[in-house]
Amino acid sequence: MRVLGIDPGSLATGYGVVERCGASVVHVAHGTLRPPRGGALAERLAAVHAGLARAIAAHRPEVAVVERIFAGRSARAALVLGHARGVALAAAAEAGLPVLEYAPGEIKQAVVGTGAAEKRQVQGMVGRLLALAEPAAADAADALAAALCHVQRGRLAVLGAAFGRRRTRPVAASRVVVRRAR
Amino acid sequence: MRVLGIDPGSLATGYGVVERCGASVVHVAHGTLRPPRGGALAERLAAVHAGLARAIAAHRPEVAVVERIFAGRSARAALVLGHARGVALAAAAEAGLPVLEYAPGEIKQAVVGTGAAEKRQVQGMVGRLLALAEPAAADAADALAAALCHVQRGRLAVLGAAFGRRRTRPVAASRVVVRRAR
Repeated sequence: MRVLGIDPGSLATGYGVVERCGASVVHVAHGTLRPPRGGALAERLAAVHAGLARAIAAHRPEVAVVERIFAGRSARAALVLGHARGVALAAAAEAGLPVLEYAPGEIKQAVVGTGAAEKRQVQGMVGRLLALAEPAAADAADALAAALCHVQRGRLAVLGAAFGRRRTRPVAASRVVVRRAR
Repeated sequence: MRVLGIDPGSLATGYGVVERCGASVVHVAHGTLRPPRGGALAERLAAVHAGLARAIAAHRPEVAVVERIFAGRSARAALVLGHARGVALAAAAEAGLPVLEYAPGEIKQAVVGTGAAEKRQVQGMVGRLLALAEPAAADAADALAAALCHVQRGRLAVLGAAFGRRRTRPVAASRVVVRRAR
C-alpha cells in the first residue's frame, strides 16, 4: 500500500509518499511546493496543482491523506488555507485517489504516541520512523506524518480483523469517523 | 475581447462568457457546475475543475474575472468557499488566463448602476444587457455580471484614454485597485 500525505498551505504545500511493506514502512519521496511569493494567487495555486499532479504521476500512490481542519481560526486564514486545500484535494481526486482525512490529534498520536505532541517532535519521529538521512522540512514532515498515520491505521485494522477486536476504519473525506464494535 | 466570469461556490459554481464587439457586448455562453451533493468533497472539487477547464477550452476566453471576497463571514463558510475558489483560480491560470478581481460593489455598480443592488436586480439586468431569452440561474448570472463588469471597465478605460480623463485600470488578482489621475 502506497500512501500520499499532503499538507496544503498558503505559502508552501508539503507532500510525502510512504509504502507499507509487510510489517514495516519505507520512505518513497517527499518534497515541498513553494511557488514564488510575488506571483498572482491564481498562478501560485496552478503551480501547486501541477506540482502535486507531477508527484502523483511519479510515485503512483493508491490513496491520499490530508489533515482534517477545523475552522477555528480567523475567517481570513481559513479562506487563504481553503484555496490551497481545495486545489490539493482536486489534484488527488483527478488522479483517481480516494482522499482520507485524519484529525491533527490522530496523526500526532499515530506518529509520536500522544495527540498533544509538538511540531518538532512530529518532525523528529517522522525522520526516525522512516530512517531519513536528513530531517524533512516542516511541511513535508507533516505530510509524511499524515501518510504514516494512515499506514498505522491500516495495520491496526488488519490486527483488529485478525483478533476479532474493535477496529477503526478510515473514512472518506468530510465524513465522520465511525468506530464499529464487532 | 472575450471574458470569462466565474462565481465559485461550495455547492454550485457559475460561469459566463461574454464578448465585446465594438461598442456592444454579446453573450457567448453560461452555465452552472453542480457536482452531486452526496459525493466526496475532493471529487466535487475535481468536477468543478474539469468543468471549468472544459468551458475554457470550448469558449476560449482571454481573461477570467472573479468577485473579490472578504473574509467577513464565518471561518467555516470562508473555508468551504475557499476550496471551490482555489480550484476555479487554478483552472483559469492553468489555461493561461490572467485572473482579475472586482469588488462585489463594483460589479453591481457596473451592471445595475448602484453598488447596493439586490441579487435579483443583477440577475434581471444581466438578462436585459445580454438579451437572454431566459434569465440565467443565480450563480451563472453572477458570473456573467463579473464578466460584464470587466468589459464595462475596459470601455471606460478606452474612453478615458481617448479624452485624457481619469481612468480606472483593472488589476491582477489580490492586488489593490489603483485609481490614477493623469
